[in-house]
Amino acid sequence: MVAARDWNQFHAPENLAKSIAIEAGELLECFQWSADADPARVQEELADVLTYCYLLADKLEVDPEQIVLDKLKVTAEKYPVEKARGRSEKYDQL
Amino acid sequence: MVAARDWNQFHAPENLAKSIAIEAGELLECFQWSADADPARVQEELADVLTYCYLLADKLEVDPEQIVLDKLKVTAEKYPVEKARGRSEKYDQL
Amino acid sequence: MVAARDWNQFHAPENLAKSIAIEAGELLECFQWSADADPARVQEELADVLTYCYLLADKLEVDPEQIVLDKLKVTAEKYPVEKARGRSEKYDQL
Amino acid sequence: MVAARDWNQFHAPENLAKSIAIEAGELLECFQWSADADPARVQEELADVLTYCYLLADKLEVDPEQIVLDKLKVTAEKYPVEKARGRSEKYDQL
Repeated sequence: MVAARDWNQFHAPENLAKSIAIEAGELLECFQWSADADPARVQEELADVLTYCYLLADKLEVDPEQIVLDKLKVTAEKYPVEKARGRSEKYDQL
Repeated sequence: MVAARDWNQFHAPENLAKSIAIEAGELLECFQWSADADPARVQEELADVLTYCYLLADKLEVDPEQIVLDKLKVTAEKYPVEKARGRSEKYDQL
Repeated sequence: MVAARDWNQFHAPENLAKSIAIEAGELLECFQWSADADPARVQEELADVLTYCYLLADKLEVDPEQIVLDKLKVTAEKYPVEKARGRSEKYDQL
Repeated sequence: MVAARDWNQFHAPENLAKSIAIEAGELLECFQWSADADPARVQEELADVLTYCYLLADKLEVDPEQIVLDKLKVTAEKYPVEKARGRSEKYDQL
Protein backbone atom coordinates (compact mmCIF):
# COMPACT_ATOMS: atom_id res chain seq x y z
CA MET A 1 0.00 0.00 0.00
CA VAL A 2 2.80 2.40 0.93
CA ALA A 3 4.69 1.72 -2.32
CA ALA A 4 1.62 2.20 -4.52
CA ARG A 5 1.07 5.63 -3.00
CA ASP A 6 4.73 6.78 -3.20
CA TRP A 7 4.66 7.34 0.53
CA ASN A 8 8.12 5.86 1.07
CA GLN A 9 9.68 9.31 0.85
CA PHE A 10 7.90 10.32 4.07
CA HIS A 11 8.94 7.18 5.91
CA ALA A 12 12.36 8.19 7.17
CA PRO A 13 12.97 6.43 10.51
CA GLU A 14 12.76 9.80 12.28
CA ASN A 15 9.31 10.50 10.83
CA LEU A 16 8.16 7.02 11.81
CA ALA A 17 9.41 7.55 15.38
CA LYS A 18 7.47 10.83 15.51
CA SER A 19 4.40 9.06 14.10
CA ILE A 20 4.62 6.33 16.76
CA ALA A 21 4.70 8.98 19.51
CA ILE A 22 1.79 10.87 17.93
CA GLU A 23 -0.35 7.74 17.64
CA ALA A 24 0.63 6.67 21.19
CA GLY A 25 -0.81 10.01 22.32
CA GLU A 26 -4.07 9.26 20.52
CA LEU A 27 -4.21 5.83 22.14
CA LEU A 28 -3.62 7.44 25.54
CA GLU A 29 -6.46 9.87 24.81
CA CYS A 30 -8.88 6.92 25.12
CA PHE A 31 -7.91 6.88 28.82
CA GLN A 32 -7.49 10.64 29.37
CA TRP A 33 -10.08 11.13 32.11
CA SER A 34 -10.89 7.56 33.12
CA ALA A 35 -9.53 4.02 33.11
CA ASP A 36 -12.66 2.93 31.24
CA ALA A 37 -12.28 3.17 27.52
CA ASP A 38 -14.25 2.02 24.52
CA PRO A 39 -12.49 -1.23 23.43
CA ALA A 40 -13.29 -0.62 19.75
CA ARG A 41 -11.62 2.79 19.85
CA VAL A 42 -8.63 1.42 21.81
CA GLN A 43 -8.20 -1.32 19.20
CA GLU A 44 -8.23 1.19 16.37
CA GLU A 45 -5.66 3.47 18.00
CA LEU A 46 -3.48 0.50 18.93
CA ALA A 47 -3.59 -0.59 15.28
CA ASP A 48 -2.25 2.84 14.27
CA VAL A 49 0.66 2.61 16.73
CA LEU A 50 1.45 -0.90 15.50
CA THR A 51 1.30 0.13 11.84
CA TYR A 52 4.09 2.66 12.30
CA CYS A 53 6.04 0.21 14.48
CA TYR A 54 5.90 -2.36 11.67
CA LEU A 55 6.99 0.24 9.10
CA LEU A 56 9.95 1.18 11.30
CA ALA A 57 10.88 -2.48 11.85
CA ASP A 58 10.75 -2.88 8.08
CA LYS A 59 13.11 0.09 7.62
CA LEU A 60 15.50 -1.45 10.19
CA GLU A 61 15.13 -4.81 8.40
CA VAL A 62 14.27 -6.58 11.62
CA ASP A 63 11.38 -8.87 12.53
CA PRO A 64 9.02 -7.24 15.09
CA GLU A 65 8.35 -10.45 17.04
CA GLN A 66 12.02 -11.41 17.05
CA ILE A 67 13.25 -8.10 18.52
CA VAL A 68 10.58 -8.34 21.23
CA LEU A 69 11.76 -11.83 22.13
CA ASP A 70 15.39 -10.68 22.12
CA LYS A 71 14.57 -7.78 24.42
CA LEU A 72 12.45 -9.95 26.74
CA LYS A 73 15.40 -12.27 27.19
CA VAL A 74 17.50 -9.31 28.36
CA THR A 75 14.68 -8.11 30.65
CA ALA A 76 14.16 -11.59 32.13
CA GLU A 77 17.80 -11.59 33.16
CA LYS A 78 17.48 -8.14 34.76
CA TYR A 79 14.32 -9.07 36.72
CA PRO A 80 14.82 -12.54 38.26
CA VAL A 81 11.54 -14.23 39.27
CA GLU A 82 12.42 -14.45 42.97
CA LYS A 83 13.13 -10.75 43.24
CA ALA A 84 10.54 -9.25 40.93
CA ARG A 85 7.39 -11.14 41.96
CA GLY A 86 4.54 -8.67 42.53
CA ARG A 87 6.68 -5.57 42.26
CA SER A 88 6.83 -2.79 39.69
CA GLU A 89 10.09 -1.06 40.64
CA LYS A 90 12.81 -0.60 38.06
CA TYR A 91 15.44 -3.33 38.09
CA ASP A 92 18.09 -1.12 39.65
CA GLN A 93 15.84 -0.52 42.65
CA LEU A 94 15.13 -4.20 43.37
CA MET B 1 7.21 -14.21 31.82
CA VAL B 2 4.59 -11.71 33.03
CA ALA B 3 2.59 -14.45 34.80
CA ALA B 4 5.63 -15.92 36.55
CA ARG B 5 6.40 -12.50 38.05
CA ASP B 6 2.80 -11.67 39.11
CA TRP B 7 2.98 -8.56 36.96
CA ASN B 8 -0.53 -9.02 35.59
CA GLN B 9 -1.92 -6.76 38.33
CA PHE B 10 -0.02 -3.79 36.82
CA HIS B 11 -1.20 -4.50 33.29
CA ALA B 12 -4.53 -2.73 33.27
CA PRO B 13 -5.18 -1.43 29.73
CA GLU B 14 -4.75 2.13 30.99
CA ASN B 15 -1.30 1.37 32.41
CA LEU B 16 -0.31 -0.32 29.16
CA ALA B 17 -1.45 2.72 27.16
CA LYS B 18 0.67 4.94 29.43
CA SER B 19 3.60 2.55 29.01
CA ILE B 20 3.31 2.66 25.21
CA ALA B 21 3.42 6.49 25.32
CA ILE B 22 6.40 6.44 27.70
CA GLU B 23 8.37 4.01 25.54
CA ALA B 24 7.40 5.94 22.38
CA GLY B 25 9.04 8.95 24.04
CA GLU B 26 12.22 6.95 24.63
CA LEU B 27 12.21 5.83 21.01
CA LEU B 28 11.79 9.44 19.88
CA GLU B 29 14.73 10.40 22.11
CA CYS B 30 17.01 8.50 19.67
CA PHE B 31 16.11 11.24 17.16
CA GLN B 32 15.89 14.22 19.55
CA TRP B 33 18.59 16.42 18.00
CA SER B 34 19.22 14.70 14.67
CA ALA B 35 17.69 12.37 12.11
CA ASP B 36 20.72 10.11 12.52
CA ALA B 37 20.25 7.55 15.23
CA ASP B 38 22.10 4.47 16.36
CA PRO B 39 20.14 1.57 14.75
CA ALA B 40 20.90 -0.76 17.68
CA ARG B 41 19.40 1.69 20.15
CA VAL B 42 16.40 2.36 17.88
CA GLN B 43 15.77 -1.38 17.64
CA GLU B 44 15.87 -1.77 21.40
CA GLU B 45 13.45 1.11 22.04
CA LEU B 46 11.14 -0.11 19.27
CA ALA B 47 11.11 -3.53 20.94
CA ASP B 48 9.93 -1.88 24.17
CA VAL B 49 7.07 -0.09 22.41
CA LEU B 50 6.07 -3.32 20.68
CA THR B 51 6.19 -5.32 23.91
CA TYR B 52 3.55 -3.13 25.53
CA CYS B 53 1.52 -3.08 22.30
CA TYR B 54 1.47 -6.89 22.30
CA LEU B 55 0.45 -6.96 25.99
CA LEU B 56 -2.41 -4.56 25.26
CA ALA B 57 -3.52 -6.58 22.21
CA ASP B 58 -3.48 -9.62 24.47
CA LYS B 59 -5.70 -7.84 27.01
CA LEU B 60 -8.10 -6.88 24.20
CA GLU B 61 -7.94 -10.47 22.93
CA VAL B 62 -7.10 -9.33 19.42
CA ASP B 63 -4.30 -10.36 17.06
CA PRO B 64 -1.82 -7.50 16.46
CA GLU B 65 -1.26 -8.28 12.78
CA GLN B 66 -4.97 -8.72 12.14
CA ILE B 67 -5.99 -5.35 13.61
CA VAL B 68 -3.28 -3.66 11.54
CA LEU B 69 -4.62 -5.30 8.37
CA ASP B 70 -8.20 -4.34 9.31
CA LYS B 71 -7.16 -0.73 9.87
CA LEU B 72 -5.11 -0.58 6.67
CA LYS B 73 -8.15 -1.68 4.71
CA VAL B 74 -10.07 1.28 6.14
CA THR B 75 -7.15 3.64 5.42
CA ALA B 76 -6.77 2.36 1.86
CA GLU B 77 -10.37 3.31 1.22
CA LYS B 78 -9.83 6.78 2.67
CA TYR B 79 -6.68 7.43 0.58
CA PRO B 80 -7.33 6.25 -3.00
CA VAL B 81 -4.11 5.66 -4.98
CA GLU B 82 -4.90 8.27 -7.65
CA LYS B 83 -5.39 11.01 -5.11
CA ALA B 84 -2.79 10.19 -2.48
CA ARG B 85 0.29 9.50 -4.63
CA GLY B 86 3.26 11.45 -3.30
CA ARG B 87 1.27 13.46 -0.78
CA SER B 88 1.23 13.44 3.01
CA GLU B 89 -1.90 15.47 3.70
CA LYS B 90 -4.64 14.03 5.84
CA TYR B 91 -7.42 12.35 3.88
CA ASP B 92 -9.88 15.17 4.55
CA GLN B 93 -7.50 17.66 2.90
CA LEU B 94 -7.01 15.65 -0.30
CA MET C 1 22.29 29.80 29.24
CA VAL C 2 21.43 28.38 25.82
CA ALA C 3 23.36 31.13 24.01
CA ALA C 4 26.48 30.69 26.13
CA ARG C 5 26.61 27.02 25.20
CA ASP C 6 25.93 27.49 21.44
CA TRP C 7 22.90 25.26 21.78
CA ASN C 8 20.73 27.44 19.58
CA GLN C 9 21.63 25.33 16.54
CA PHE C 10 19.78 22.35 18.08
CA HIS C 11 16.71 24.37 18.92
CA ALA C 12 14.81 24.22 15.65
CA PRO C 13 11.06 24.26 16.45
CA GLU C 14 10.80 20.65 15.29
CA ASN C 15 13.50 19.53 17.74
CA LEU C 16 11.80 21.45 20.55
CA ALA C 17 8.46 19.78 19.74
CA LYS C 18 10.20 16.38 19.88
CA SER C 19 11.82 17.37 23.17
CA ILE C 20 8.47 18.38 24.67
CA ALA C 21 7.01 14.97 23.73
CA ILE C 22 10.06 13.16 25.14
CA GLU C 23 9.92 15.04 28.44
CA ALA C 24 6.13 14.57 28.61
CA GLY C 25 6.83 10.83 28.44
CA GLU C 26 9.25 11.11 31.36
CA LEU C 27 6.65 13.04 33.35
CA LEU C 28 4.08 10.35 32.58
CA GLU C 29 6.56 7.73 33.77
CA CYS C 30 6.07 9.06 37.33
CA PHE C 31 2.52 7.70 37.04
CA GLN C 32 3.24 4.57 34.97
CA TRP C 33 1.93 1.95 37.39
CA SER C 34 0.05 4.04 39.93
CA ALA C 35 -1.69 7.37 40.45
CA ASP C 36 0.63 7.99 43.40
CA ALA C 37 3.83 9.72 42.40
CA ASP C 38 6.68 11.36 44.23
CA PRO C 39 5.85 15.12 44.08
CA ALA C 40 9.54 16.09 43.94
CA ARG C 41 10.10 13.90 40.89
CA VAL C 42 6.89 15.14 39.24
CA GLN C 43 8.02 18.75 39.78
CA GLU C 44 11.40 18.05 38.20
CA GLU C 45 9.90 16.39 35.12
CA LEU C 46 7.28 19.12 34.78
CA ALA C 47 10.09 21.68 34.86
CA ASP C 48 11.73 19.88 31.93
CA VAL C 49 8.52 19.95 29.87
CA LEU C 50 8.06 23.64 30.67
CA THR C 51 11.66 24.50 29.78
CA TYR C 52 11.21 23.24 26.22
CA CYS C 53 7.77 24.88 26.01
CA TYR C 54 9.33 28.23 26.95
CA LEU C 55 12.11 27.75 24.39
CA LEU C 56 9.52 27.01 21.69
CA ALA C 57 7.41 30.03 22.71
CA ASP C 58 10.60 32.09 22.47
CA LYS C 59 11.23 30.78 18.93
CA LEU C 60 7.65 31.66 17.97
CA GLU C 61 8.11 35.08 19.62
CA VAL C 62 4.97 34.65 21.69
CA ASP C 63 4.37 35.01 25.41
CA PRO C 64 3.53 31.63 27.06
CA GLU C 65 0.93 33.05 29.45
CA GLN C 66 -0.69 35.13 26.73
CA ILE C 67 -1.20 32.22 24.30
CA VAL C 68 -2.72 30.17 27.12
CA LEU C 69 -5.17 32.96 27.90
CA ASP C 70 -6.00 33.35 24.20
CA LYS C 71 -6.66 29.62 23.87
CA LEU C 72 -8.73 29.49 27.07
CA LYS C 73 -10.97 32.19 25.68
CA VAL C 74 -11.64 30.01 22.62
CA THR C 75 -12.22 26.94 24.82
CA ALA C 76 -14.58 28.84 27.14
CA GLU C 77 -16.73 29.63 24.14
CA LYS C 78 -16.74 26.00 23.00
CA TYR C 79 -17.69 24.66 26.46
CA PRO C 80 -20.47 26.89 27.89
CA VAL C 81 -20.81 26.59 31.69
CA GLU C 82 -24.39 25.34 31.58
CA LYS C 83 -23.56 22.48 29.25
CA ALA C 84 -20.12 21.44 30.47
CA ARG C 85 -20.59 21.34 34.25
CA GLY C 86 -19.24 18.07 35.64
CA ARG C 87 -18.62 16.50 32.27
CA SER C 88 -15.44 15.53 30.45
CA GLU C 89 -16.73 14.86 26.95
CA LYS C 90 -15.23 16.70 24.02
CA TYR C 91 -17.18 19.79 22.99
CA ASP C 92 -18.61 18.19 19.88
CA GLN C 93 -20.19 15.46 22.01
CA LEU C 94 -21.91 17.83 24.46
CA MET D 1 -12.88 28.61 34.35
CA VAL D 2 -12.12 25.09 35.63
CA ALA D 3 -13.95 25.73 38.93
CA ALA D 4 -17.04 27.14 37.22
CA ARG D 5 -17.37 23.98 35.18
CA ASP D 6 -16.77 21.50 38.07
CA TRP D 7 -13.83 20.09 36.13
CA ASN D 8 -11.60 19.84 39.19
CA GLN D 9 -12.68 16.23 39.71
CA PHE D 10 -10.97 15.25 36.45
CA HIS D 11 -7.78 17.09 37.29
CA ALA D 12 -5.96 14.50 39.35
CA PRO D 13 -2.21 14.91 38.76
CA GLU D 14 -2.17 11.60 36.88
CA ASN D 15 -4.86 12.79 34.46
CA LEU D 16 -2.99 16.05 33.93
CA ALA D 17 0.23 14.14 33.18
CA LYS D 18 -1.67 12.04 30.62
CA SER D 19 -3.17 15.22 29.16
CA ILE D 20 0.27 16.82 28.80
CA ALA D 21 1.52 13.75 26.90
CA ILE D 22 -1.59 13.72 24.68
CA GLU D 23 -1.27 17.40 23.81
CA ALA D 24 2.49 17.01 23.27
CA GLY D 25 1.58 14.40 20.66
CA GLU D 26 -0.75 16.86 18.93
CA LEU D 27 2.00 19.49 18.95
CA LEU D 28 4.40 16.96 17.43
CA GLU D 29 1.81 16.19 14.75
CA CYS D 30 2.46 19.69 13.32
CA PHE D 31 5.93 18.37 12.42
CA GLN D 32 4.99 14.77 11.54
CA TRP D 33 6.22 14.69 7.95
CA SER D 34 8.26 17.89 7.71
CA ALA D 35 10.18 20.42 9.78
CA ASP D 36 7.99 23.14 8.28
CA ALA D 37 4.87 23.74 10.30
CA ASP D 38 2.15 26.34 10.33
CA PRO D 39 3.17 28.73 13.17
CA ALA D 40 -0.47 29.48 14.06
CA ARG D 41 -1.21 25.81 14.55
CA VAL D 42 2.03 25.26 16.50
CA GLN D 43 1.11 28.15 18.79
CA GLU D 44 -2.33 26.70 19.44
CA GLU D 45 -1.02 23.24 20.26
CA LEU D 46 1.74 24.69 22.44
CA ALA D 47 -0.94 26.64 24.34
CA ASP D 48 -2.74 23.35 25.06
CA VAL D 49 0.42 21.72 26.42
CA LEU D 50 1.10 24.78 28.57
CA THR D 51 -2.47 24.89 29.90
CA TYR D 52 -2.18 21.42 31.38
CA CYS D 53 1.35 22.19 32.64
CA TYR D 54 0.00 25.21 34.50
CA LEU D 55 -2.88 23.16 35.96
CA LEU D 56 -0.39 20.55 37.19
CA ALA D 57 1.90 23.23 38.66
CA ASP D 58 -1.16 24.61 40.41
CA LYS D 59 -1.97 21.17 41.86
CA LEU D 60 1.63 20.86 43.08
CA GLU D 61 1.39 24.41 44.46
CA VAL D 62 4.56 25.47 42.67
CA ASP D 63 5.28 28.42 40.40
CA PRO D 64 5.98 27.30 36.78
CA GLU D 65 8.71 29.88 36.14
CA GLN D 66 10.37 29.20 39.48
CA ILE D 67 10.67 25.43 38.97
CA VAL D 68 12.14 26.02 35.52
CA LEU D 69 14.75 28.36 36.99
CA ASP D 70 15.51 25.87 39.77
CA LYS D 71 15.95 23.06 37.25
CA LEU D 72 18.08 25.21 34.92
CA LYS D 73 20.44 25.91 37.79
CA VAL D 74 20.92 22.18 38.28
CA THR D 75 21.38 21.66 34.51
CA ALA D 76 23.88 24.53 34.27
CA GLU D 77 26.01 22.77 36.87
CA LYS D 78 25.82 19.47 34.96
CA TYR D 79 26.77 21.06 31.61
CA PRO D 80 29.67 23.50 32.22
CA VAL D 81 30.08 26.06 29.40
CA GLU D 82 33.62 24.97 28.46
CA LYS D 83 32.59 21.36 27.97
CA ALA D 84 29.13 21.71 26.48
CA ARG D 85 29.67 24.37 23.81
CA GLY D 86 28.18 23.23 20.51
CA ARG D 87 27.41 19.73 21.66
CA SER D 88 24.15 17.91 22.27
CA GLU D 89 25.36 14.82 24.13
CA LYS D 90 23.92 13.99 27.52
CA TYR D 91 25.99 15.27 30.45
CA ASP D 92 27.31 11.82 31.37
CA GLN D 93 28.81 11.45 27.88
CA LEU D 94 30.68 14.77 27.90
